[in-house]
Amino acid sequence: MPKYRQKYGQFVIEGRKMVEEVFHSDWEIDGIWATKAFVNRHEPTYPFDIISVDENKKLTAFDTAPGVLALVRIPVPDALDQGVNFMLALDGISDPGNMGSIIRLADWFGLQQVIASEDCVDMFNPKCLNASMGSFLRVSVVYTKLNQVVEGRTVYGAFLDGVSIHNQKITGKSMLIVGSESHGIRLEAQSLVTKRITIPGNGGAESLNAAMASAILLDNLLR
Amino acid sequence: MPKYRQKYGQFVIEGRKMVEEVFHSDWEIDGIWATKAFVNRHEPTYPFDIISVDENKKLTAFDTAPGVLALVRIPVPDALDQGVNFMLALDGISDPGNMGSIIRLADWFGLQQVIASEDCVDMFNPKCLNASMGSFLRVSVVYTKLNQVVEGRTVYGAFLDGVSIHNQKITGKSMLIVGSESHGIRLEAQSLVTKRITIPGNGGAESLNAAMASAILLDNLLR
Repeated sequence: MPKYRQKYGQFVIEGRKMVEEVFHSDWEIDGIWATKAFVNRHEPTYPFDIISVDENKKLTAFDTAPGVLALVRIPVPDALDQGVNFMLALDGISDPGNMGSIIRLADWFGLQQVIASEDCVDMFNPKCLNASMGSFLRVSVVYTKLNQVVEGRTVYGAFLDGVSIHNQKITGKSMLIVGSESHGIRLEAQSLVTKRITIPGNGGAESLNAAMASAILLDNLLR
Repeated sequence: MPKYRQKYGQFVIEGRKMVEEVFHSDWEIDGIWATKAFVNRHEPTYPFDIISVDENKKLTAFDTAPGVLALVRIPVPDALDQGVNFMLALDGISDPGNMGSIIRLADWFGLQQVIASEDCVDMFNPKCLNASMGSFLRVSVVYTKLNQVVEGRTVYGAFLDGVSIHNQKITGKSMLIVGSESHGIRLEAQSLVTKRITIPGNGGAESLNAAMASAILLDNLLR
């Protein structure tokens, strides 16, 4: 986790929809700032302070500043829930856009937690929050060693040489490990996999990105 | 299409893998430039000129310049192939990352063309090229009015209230229309849809992004 988020226990969220969604959640907000132009256009109903366009430009994580941002307290992380039937686990996902998309996907399929190896990108990274489209409020990401959560589970992992994911359906306690764009599922996590699966495709692309692959895998396993 | 690409009929591609892949394709290259650091590290086997780190910073479309870029001729667009059994059509996709991911996905499933409404983002946008991971070399994007390609096809469109995509499989000539993040499938394109489908999910997320939704839909329709 980047130092300022770790040090102050806060993160910044930007954009009209996201700020509104956080405001209506039970997460603790330390401040909301908006530009005059934003306020004139959207007439926010939550309390805010005005910032200048220049200040906003300095603070934003995006090429085009959305005009509104909130400083939010990082909540105490939820403990790992070992009781769930199915777990989604991420091995070394470093792209914040992929991470956020996967959080959104987990939320779509009703998963309330995602397990992430300790070197996965921080879920409070601005690009991750943005890609999650507010799903970070409903899905908790538990950073831990993957080998500490697999006991007694069928562990699925996607490889190019696995069996087709079609007609695979989870039964009993299970887990899906998704690897990163650059390294796939790394050796340590590979050793946890008990069922090697693959996404059938017959074109020229060598792989899919982690978010698209997760989408297809979850749709098949959880149907 | 942004003016300079339209005016000069060229686009810029960046990054080690991408430049290499284009170099080994039959696409026409007008020049390759690399920084000294890049050359020392990767010892390219293709011809190139040296640029300074500062020049590279000015030219790059990315926060961190990859250190190598090529100027490539935009090929004459492939004509629409009406003969194919299945078509993927995009309605108003404006996010270049989503567009590139969908091109990569099409390539994964062996589709050689993607139909795009004329207001979709340009496939030669740097972020789109980057997300496509070289698949733009194998998949041609045909920009056209969607209503000119649907004749005689079953047209699938994803909505929140359609029938489950599970166990839907294309038979005969068909087409899938994917809408954008912000507007979904717009009214004009909606009127072309003959089969409303949906991706089952029971969580809190209101939607999936266009790339993830396309991944799940194609995996189901083309299995």
